[in-house]
Amino acid sequence: MAKTARKNHQQPEHQFAQGPAPAPSSAAARDDTEITALDLPTASLTPAMEAYFAKCEEKLGFVPNVLKAYGFDMAKLEAFVAMYNDLMLAPSGLSKLEREMIAVAVSSHNRCYYCLVAHGAAVRQLSGDPVLGELMVMNYRAAPLSPRQRAMLDFVVKLTAEPWRVEDQDRARLRTAGFTDRDIWDISAVAAFFNMTNRVASATDMRPNSVYHAQAR
Amino acid sequence: MAKTARKNHQQPEHQFAQGPAPAPSSAAARDDTEITALDLPTASLTPAMEAYFAKCEEKLGFVPNVLKAYGFDMAKLEAFVAMYNDLMLAPSGLSKLEREMIAVAVSSHNRCYYCLVAHGAAVRQLSGDPVLGELMVMNYRAAPLSPRQRAMLDFVVKLTAEPWRVEDQDRARLRTAGFTDRDIWDISAVAAFFNMTNRVASATDMRPNSVYHAQAR
Amino acid sequence: MAKTARKNHQQPEHQFAQGPAPAPSSAAARDDTEITALDLPTASLTPAMEAYFAKCEEKLGFVPNVLKAYGFDMAKLEAFVAMYNDLMLAPSGLSKLEREMIAVAVSSHNRCYYCLVAHGAAVRQLSGDPVLGELMVMNYRAAPLSPRQRAMLDFVVKLTAEPWRVEDQDRARLRTAGFTDRDIWDISAVAAFFNMTNRVASATDMRPNSVYHAQAR
Amino acid sequence: MAKTARKNHQQPEHQFAQGPAPAPSSAAARDDTEITALDLPTASLTPAMEAYFAKCEEKLGFVPNVLKAYGFDMAKLEAFVAMYNDLMLAPSGLSKLEREMIAVAVSSHNRCYYCLVAHGAAVRQLSGDPVLGELMVMNYRAAPLSPRQRAMLDFVVKLTAEPWRVEDQDRARLRTAGFTDRDIWDISAVAAFFNMTNRVASATDMRPNSVYHAQAR
Amino acid sequence: MAKTARKNHQQPEHQFAQGPAPAPSSAAARDDTEITALDLPTASLTPAMEAYFAKCEEKLGFVPNVLKAYGFDMAKLEAFVAMYNDLMLAPSGLSKLEREMIAVAVSSHNRCYYCLVAHGAAVRQLSGDPVLGELMVMNYRAAPLSPRQRAMLDFVVKLTAEPWRVEDQDRARLRTAGFTDRDIWDISAVAAFFNMTNRVASATDMRPNSVYHAQAR
Amino acid sequence: MAKTARKNHQQPEHQFAQGPAPAPSSAAARDDTEITALDLPTASLTPAMEAYFAKCEEKLGFVPNVLKAYGFDMAKLEAFVAMYNDLMLAPSGLSKLEREMIAVAVSSHNRCYYCLVAHGAAVRQLSGDPVLGELMVMNYRAAPLSPRQRAMLDFVVKLTAEPWRVEDQDRARLRTAGFTDRDIWDISAVAAFFNMTNRVASATDMRPNSVYHAQAR
Repeated sequence: MAKTARKNHQQPEHQFAQGPAPAPSSAAARDDTEITALDLPTASLTPAMEAYFAKCEEKLGFVPNVLKAYGFDMAKLEAFVAMYNDLMLAPSGLSKLEREMIAVAVSSHNRCYYCLVAHGAAVRQLSGDPVLGELMVMNYRAAPLSPRQRAMLDFVVKLTAEPWRVEDQDRARLRTAGFTDRDIWDISAVAAFFNMTNRVASATDMRPNSVYHAQAR
Repeated sequence: MAKTARKNHQQPEHQFAQGPAPAPSSAAARDDTEITALDLPTASLTPAMEAYFAKCEEKLGFVPNVLKAYGFDMAKLEAFVAMYNDLMLAPSGLSKLEREMIAVAVSSHNRCYYCLVAHGAAVRQLSGDPVLGELMVMNYRAAPLSPRQRAMLDFVVKLTAEPWRVEDQDRARLRTAGFTDRDIWDISAVAAFFNMTNRVASATDMRPNSVYHAQAR
Repeated sequence: MAKTARKNHQQPEHQFAQGPAPAPSSAAARDDTEITALDLPTASLTPAMEAYFAKCEEKLGFVPNVLKAYGFDMAKLEAFVAMYNDLMLAPSGLSKLEREMIAVAVSSHNRCYYCLVAHGAAVRQLSGDPVLGELMVMNYRAAPLSPRQRAMLDFVVKLTAEPWRVEDQDRARLRTAGFTDRDIWDISAVAAFFNMTNRVASATDMRPNSVYHAQAR
Repeated sequence: MAKTARKNHQQPEHQFAQGPAPAPSSAAARDDTEITALDLPTASLTPAMEAYFAKCEEKLGFVPNVLKAYGFDMAKLEAFVAMYNDLMLAPSGLSKLEREMIAVAVSSHNRCYYCLVAHGAAVRQLSGDPVLGELMVMNYRAAPLSPRQRAMLDFVVKLTAEPWRVEDQDRARLRTAGFTDRDIWDISAVAAFFNMTNRVASATDMRPNSVYHAQAR
Repeated sequence: MAKTARKNHQQPEHQFAQGPAPAPSSAAARDDTEITALDLPTASLTPAMEAYFAKCEEKLGFVPNVLKAYGFDMAKLEAFVAMYNDLMLAPSGLSKLEREMIAVAVSSHNRCYYCLVAHGAAVRQLSGDPVLGELMVMNYRAAPLSPRQRAMLDFVVKLTAEPWRVEDQDRARLRTAGFTDRDIWDISAVAAFFNMTNRVASATDMRPNSVYHAQAR
Repeated sequence: MAKTARKNHQQPEHQFAQGPAPAPSSAAARDDTEITALDLPTASLTPAMEAYFAKCEEKLGFVPNVLKAYGFDMAKLEAFVAMYNDLMLAPSGLSKLEREMIAVAVSSHNRCYYCLVAHGAAVRQLSGDPVLGELMVMNYRAAPLSPRQRAMLDFVVKLTAEPWRVEDQDRARLRTAGFTDRDIWDISAVAAFFNMTNRVASATDMRPNSVYHAQAR
């Protein structure tokens, strides 16, 4: 499958030259250019996906690694892209920034490295506020948010941590904060989606494109 | 949106005639025929979805409520159906029963009423073993499973509960149990998908078709 | 000790014929007709217990496995039966159904296979509502309950999960919901009892009579 | 019901004379001589229980408050006494000290004030080692224990905290440590019993006899 | 380094003479007079520390083991002593007893044997109330406290268990209970300090002077 | 007390112009230039601290906000500075980078905004590896570490999350990874120190200097 460089994950040799020379850990032993820890078959992109990857290259300058990771099976890739684009880009009572804030707050609870890197960059870019991105990654409770956005993030983090405890009163708090029932669906669906992708990324040790790290700092 | 009866959720009046007469709870106040707690717009089915619903009626005798719940927006419904059908029905190294066992073990951790009812029935049907369905709902650790299936379910429950702790050694255990890297993707993707649907169902208080309860007992 | 069949715990052979043939797991290796995982001595029933077992056969059609499990020692069996019958059957401000609902909500938190099977059936039978039994097993928060019963179950699940946090305000909520101080004792004692039996069952891998599964569906 | 003094729970007035004068808390408002927070009916002791209370007075110098708390209903008191005496005093492969160590380790996990005070004193008395009692109350992992006793306490604390995770390998560890299957029953039954009494005590805010505090220090 | 006797940690031989003779556990194998499980270098006391140790001997009759544990490095010992004395003894809106109550409530959450023994004794001594010391060790929620002290302990236990959830409303509750902003700093700093020392003690298996056990009972 | 600008915490107005206009949240209402949420007295710097602040300005270009936060009381500030400098800068078997990695891994578990920002920057600077800083903030388990450093971070995160479970075998793992007993003290002391500072920062809502965010990206 497609490879991307992860060179800068390497620490300078001299920092670690203390104590007995360690055997390489299994993580270090993995080829640093692989996107996931799984050895998956390759597949040819369908014309629709070829066009989509080209559009990514044009707009972003790169193809996000998650797409390459799904690229071993076109049915899976197309289903993922369709759901992602509907949730994050289609018209909604939630701004695109708010959807990205949900993505990062959920991924922070789940401590998902891939999603925190990729969507933390999105929050920085969409908000023009590098600190807001850090706050979402580290602890959304420390961010100076409007009551609307605080209610939204409290809901998604509860839904992430203890879905079995979400009840009418939780939905009522969202309505009080100004959200419509359709907004509640969108909040829930975005939060639920990142609970899915966080787990695909963690289960496969998916690695983000390194270009995200320096974006919009 | 389409309504389905939930009459048998009603407890006999006399059971509750103890102590002072209670005010109706907010859950009880909700119209018992609504599929979710959200008041969402209605949408016309696309021809593809109309055909799909007809196929459900023909094969199952009913349209699963989750499809009706997504029915307010065709883009969301079609993306959901595409992803669901690929994950649960497409060729895979996992049997359909195994994929349903993952669905129920994940939903049990998340205590998702909708998914436990619907997919518990699927485990009973596909296995021809009503007790296996109950074991998946109640505590998969109590089930007499093959090492392969036990390793599979241990992985998905860890991925559900603590995705940040899944590492190379967890994938190694799956390989030792006989799974290929492609199987590991499928195990992960199914588990991740139900972590999504559990949260959509809990966030919206989605209710399963009552027909599931008596199936394959 | 007495044996009961657990034949239907067996999954059809063909479902598992994927991947390399697994060695039998330790659970599978255990004789499928044993009630617990422990090899305990046998004892003669006292006349009182002989009469009690006969009454079970007459009324239920079988002797519950938990009684057989305690049957290796008459002092233990008689103490268990005395406490069980007082708590679950003696006059109380709680209906028998309510006591069974407590049993199942507690056992659901503790994911106790034996107690969920046996007392889930009791809820279905006493309520005449198969769905209510499932709701108690899966997530009592999803059930449309009266405020009285919801307060009762919230109390017992908190007492199960975090007994160190139960305080005056928790008892006050029960009083507000219409319970007397004597009712609060009974609620507490039933919840506490199932916290005991759940642990005896889990510690010994106790298996329920298979007849429960199809009852009152 | 019978009253016992709790005078020494009072802190010296002057220690609290800082900041604005507080309103009495609800706990402080409760009559300090009541054994529980519940107002329960009184009952006459049966002859058997009268004899038992007299024996407590003679042997211990007092009637443990838990017995007085159950004293509102003779059926409940007698069932409790029968089960307690069988578990803690009948012949067993576990010494009486070991059974008390289980009681305290379980009660420490559950942070049960009544049981830690009463059974902490029992460990100090039976062992002649006041430090061992403190170790059981505070953190049994810090105690210098034999492998046998460490295995026993690891088992009961796991059974207390996560009963759903107890499996064959946990029982195997006890067998390796030298316990018979009958011992495993006794370990489990004692641990399960204190998971019951901890919850009765916490649910009712039961208060121990103050005499325990200074015993065997 | 300096040694202190831990003889009374030994259980009487006969109590453990059941089952097969156990190999000594690793904890038992450690020399019973060592203060920590680490083999650290020795250092000469600076004049300031020599004077401080002498003052401890004079006032307490012994040098607390924690000071001996830090005694391998004078810079570390002096920094620890300076911070400890400022927090626990300098003028503050909190009484010395209140600061010790915080120490024990935090140490109880963290189940730190060293700090519970040493500071439990301090609560008993400063309050003249042996029961209050036990309540702080076992479960501060069971203690009959003024609203001021209850608010203080609720704050420090939340700060200990879930620091990421402490927010404006938590500080507001302290202000409502009569604390100034400077008091809130002191409450926080004492709680934070014991979250440090609990972890140094647990990480090194630090053992308290045995003299604490019988003090002020 | 000294003020520092937090202007860039402000999100662009237009991002939030959705739904009904929210009342300002309590966090937003706080003056954006305050370092903590507490209104504390001011104090004159001692000559030693004046020199230290000047050295910070000279070397870093700014005085870290944590020092200003402690600046209301010279005894507290000096004790903090002495302990901090000894732990993080004095000779040790741990490199300065390793001590900062511990700081960030602990702060990540505790989700401490202040410490993640300040010490995340330190990891980026000392390692010359911006990605390593992000990995420590997000999930150290995803970082390709040497076995030595992985063992070190596993130890400190266990010590942070469950100090009561740290035992001989945990120390043994550090020794196997090449650490001396003195190194184990240093690992423990640094981890314990950040468990303190994380809680001071969270309890007071301490805000980092905004200059950290863009450093060494």
